[in-house]
Amino acid sequence: MTTAPLTIVAEFRVSAENRARFLELCAYDSERSVADEKGCQRFEAVSPIDDPQTVILVEVYDDEAAFDTHLATPHFKVFADGVKELGVKEISVRKTARYAPRA
Amino acid sequence: MTTAPLTIVAEFRVSAENRARFLELCAYDSERSVADEKGCQRFEAVSPIDDPQTVILVEVYDDEAAFDTHLATPHFKVFADGVKELGVKEISVRKTARYAPRA
Repeated sequence: MTTAPLTIVAEFRVSAENRARFLELCAYDSERSVADEKGCQRFEAVSPIDDPQTVILVEVYDDEAAFDTHLATPHFKVFADGVKELGVKEISVRKTARYAPRA
Repeated sequence: MTTAPLTIVAEFRVSAENRARFLELCAYDSERSVADEKGCQRFEAVSPIDDPQTVILVEVYDDEAAFDTHLATPHFKVFADGVKELGVKEISVRKTARYAPRA
């Protein structure tokens, strides 16, 4: 059983009118994180089918240092600024360890 | 922007004493789902570093039919029975559509 890598599970609430723009912002952050950050293994944005105003990001980094690097990137700043401008509510940003699949 | 595949985000609460057995059960379900189900692309179990009694499963299926197939497998029954026996509380099981990365 392993606890690497670091997976971030982040949950947000967005208004119906700003949802499309927020999802666009998530897609931008996803693209740039995977393309520009060596330590970002994966970055997905999903939204519950019966609760479209919730958006969940599942991001996988090599380790905590790689996530700290992410938080200092220009594309993260664009994302964070957009969250503020669109009035998106951050419900939770959880750092998690992976237990399955086993290494 | 695409909404395929189907991602399940399931969240559970487990007692401290039953956590190790529950994580073992998650690892078993993960292994068997990926090995035995053509429509299961990925099955990960993670747990917040500062909240170890929460366990989150992130499972990726080709589509809704593939998830229905999962729910009918012998290994899912082992998992569901274990959840009951260990007194694990199901907080939420959310069906989500993927919006990033873009197809």
